[in-house]
Amino acid sequence: MAILEVTQRGAVAQLTMNAPERLNALSDEMLDALQTTLDGFANDPQTRVITLRGTGKAFCAGHDLRQMTAMRQAADGGAAAFKDLFDRCAKVMSRIQSLPQPVIAQVHGIATAAGCQLVATCDMAVAAEGTRFGVNGVNIGLFCSTPMVALSRNIPRKQAFEMLTTGDFIQADRAQSLGLVNRVVPSGNLEKETAALAEQVASKLGAAVKIGKEAFYNQIAMNTADAYAYTGDVMVQNMLREDTAEGIDAFLAKRPPNWDQ
Amino acid sequence: MAILEVTQRGAVAQLTMNAPERLNALSDEMLDALQTTLDGFANDPQTRVITLRGTGKAFCAGHDLRQMTAMRQAADGGAAAFKDLFDRCAKVMSRIQSLPQPVIAQVHGIATAAGCQLVATCDMAVAAEGTRFGVNGVNIGLFCSTPMVALSRNIPRKQAFEMLTTGDFIQADRAQSLGLVNRVVPSGNLEKETAALAEQVASKLGAAVKIGKEAFYNQIAMNTADAYAYTGDVMVQNMLREDTAEGIDAFLAKRPPNWDQ
Amino acid sequence: MAILEVTQRGAVAQLTMNAPERLNALSDEMLDALQTTLDGFANDPQTRVITLRGTGKAFCAGHDLRQMTAMRQAADGGAAAFKDLFDRCAKVMSRIQSLPQPVIAQVHGIATAAGCQLVATCDMAVAAEGTRFGVNGVNIGLFCSTPMVALSRNIPRKQAFEMLTTGDFIQADRAQSLGLVNRVVPSGNLEKETAALAEQVASKLGAAVKIGKEAFYNQIAMNTADAYAYTGDVMVQNMLREDTAEGIDAFLAKRPPNWDQ
Repeated sequence: MAILEVTQRGAVAQLTMNAPERLNALSDEMLDALQTTLDGFANDPQTRVITLRGTGKAFCAGHDLRQMTAMRQAADGGAAAFKDLFDRCAKVMSRIQSLPQPVIAQVHGIATAAGCQLVATCDMAVAAEGTRFGVNGVNIGLFCSTPMVALSRNIPRKQAFEMLTTGDFIQADRAQSLGLVNRVVPSGNLEKETAALAEQVASKLGAAVKIGKEAFYNQIAMNTADAYAYTGDVMVQNMLREDTAEGIDAFLAKRPPNWDQ
Repeated sequence: MAILEVTQRGAVAQLTMNAPERLNALSDEMLDALQTTLDGFANDPQTRVITLRGTGKAFCAGHDLRQMTAMRQAADGGAAAFKDLFDRCAKVMSRIQSLPQPVIAQVHGIATAAGCQLVATCDMAVAAEGTRFGVNGVNIGLFCSTPMVALSRNIPRKQAFEMLTTGDFIQADRAQSLGLVNRVVPSGNLEKETAALAEQVASKLGAAVKIGKEAFYNQIAMNTADAYAYTGDVMVQNMLREDTAEGIDAFLAKRPPNWDQ
Repeated sequence: MAILEVTQRGAVAQLTMNAPERLNALSDEMLDALQTTLDGFANDPQTRVITLRGTGKAFCAGHDLRQMTAMRQAADGGAAAFKDLFDRCAKVMSRIQSLPQPVIAQVHGIATAAGCQLVATCDMAVAAEGTRFGVNGVNIGLFCSTPMVALSRNIPRKQAFEMLTTGDFIQADRAQSLGLVNRVVPSGNLEKETAALAEQVASKLGAAVKIGKEAFYNQIAMNTADAYAYTGDVMVQNMLREDTAEGIDAFLAKRPPNWDQ
């Protein structure tokens, strides 16, 4: 079985991290598999939504500390290897948000450190009741500085600071109320509920979702005036599409749209 | 009856969007009326707070899709007209935040697409129980790219993304917990409660509220150091006002301030 | 008794604002004492966490209005003195966030205006049940423009605007749900619970917390790509520390780390 399995169900691709003995750590192999697989979706018009889950007890427990410790044997004490590792990890995170498809994390067990970063980075997240979230690198002397980039863009400032400096876990319902996950569902329904959310988004006009996801992350970094100038142009391009014209015509005529998708 | 009615009650101006048969859509006429009317308040020292509501079943259902569809008849397929439309809409939104007076949305029924943007753009919002909020353009193939500029500056990132890509409505209490509205009140009290909030703000020193609203949107786009340098100067100018001196003197003397307003 | 007392308990320094008759106002003397005392911790490796509380009925009621009124006697009506005051206040706030140690506000009674700013500025805050928070300068004609810099970076936009323009207080539980404080505890447990949180953070590797706090405020102002480039380097430096190596080795060997701290 591969370290990252891909199951295609119509327009939804389910990615499964499959290294349960390492709690799906973001090892060299896992990062490579994620990068290659995610890159493959960039030009795949058949796939309109991606879900991401993990096998075994945990969604993802962060970086692979044994591999990182082994890197210390290099002449530079690991400096170059560490830099390369964090660069590759950031590249995977960036790829998630730059893909045309929404990526939904399906989270169970624990999501810690870079595993929590992965949840924060996905466009949406569904969590099983009982899931615990933490950025607890501080407990071993390695502050979760890269995970906090994603975390502090999802939840309020003081609550992010508390998680980062106490190393405490938060429960799924708290993660939801803070904004880190969208939905919390009974463990037995996790797969089904995540799939239902994915199918719902996949049922929309793919071109519109693609336009929107790209615009979402672009505009959020701009000041308001620039964001309006930019998204105004995005709206014009969206309006000029034939399938959008069909969608609006259908709505006005109270009939279903005739879309290929 | 005009498409936008203005009712002045002392220092509070109530604006009523009055196109119930179109669910108060932001048609050419409605945008023009909003722009002209709002511009008129920019130099009106008598008006210290503005409220905005709609007649009929909905607060506002967004852009006028029939008008937009008609624009497609142009030689360019509507490109120029669409661009002009989104520019004018953004200008209205910008005007709301650049006015000296706080603008409070009084929301009932539904607020969708650019109607939800209008709620997100107003400085404050009071909603009736049962009001539903959505940015559901994705359902007809037109992603709510301009509404998301305002929405994603009001509520957490993942929750905004979910609304935008699922097209799902959220209820008033959820809108409140996410930060999109300030207060949710029984439907029968909506008018009264909105007016009470407006009166409360109108009872303050108008000059101070004006100084503060301008500074609010200016500083929020700055880094912290710049924001302090800027607001420090704003505080100095505020302190140097005679009516502020009177307000502080009155407070220290435990008497009501003697303000003209 | 000094206007600002320092009590050292191991690695935790407790600062107590001690001007209860003025509700611990940020007078010239209080600002000077805070600046000098906080500066003194910048190079104090023994202190790993700082807590800040006030004696008497209130945590802090903001600026000293009597002192400010006296400044009006100057030839310039106080302009230079006001500017100097707000500069010094911003410098204290900046110092809190630039210190290597996390600073935890221990809040009771009321925290208003610049007192609320102080809570918002601290890295974390624990509040007693019944504590009230307000930025109510608008009531006396002096909009809380500088406090809003900190407040609007802690809580959602519309809720900040409401507090600023209505002058209304919010209760501790509301402050927690909005993100202004981390924890609300019974009044009788406030000291103990704040100390417990401080001790928990002080038990971590001080170097890691120091690295992380600095990175937290630096990255939050960057765009995501820059934030990853920056924090990637921070992680490399963190990894290259001997005490971090020991922390990771200990974790992998399931033994406690051997840290001097």
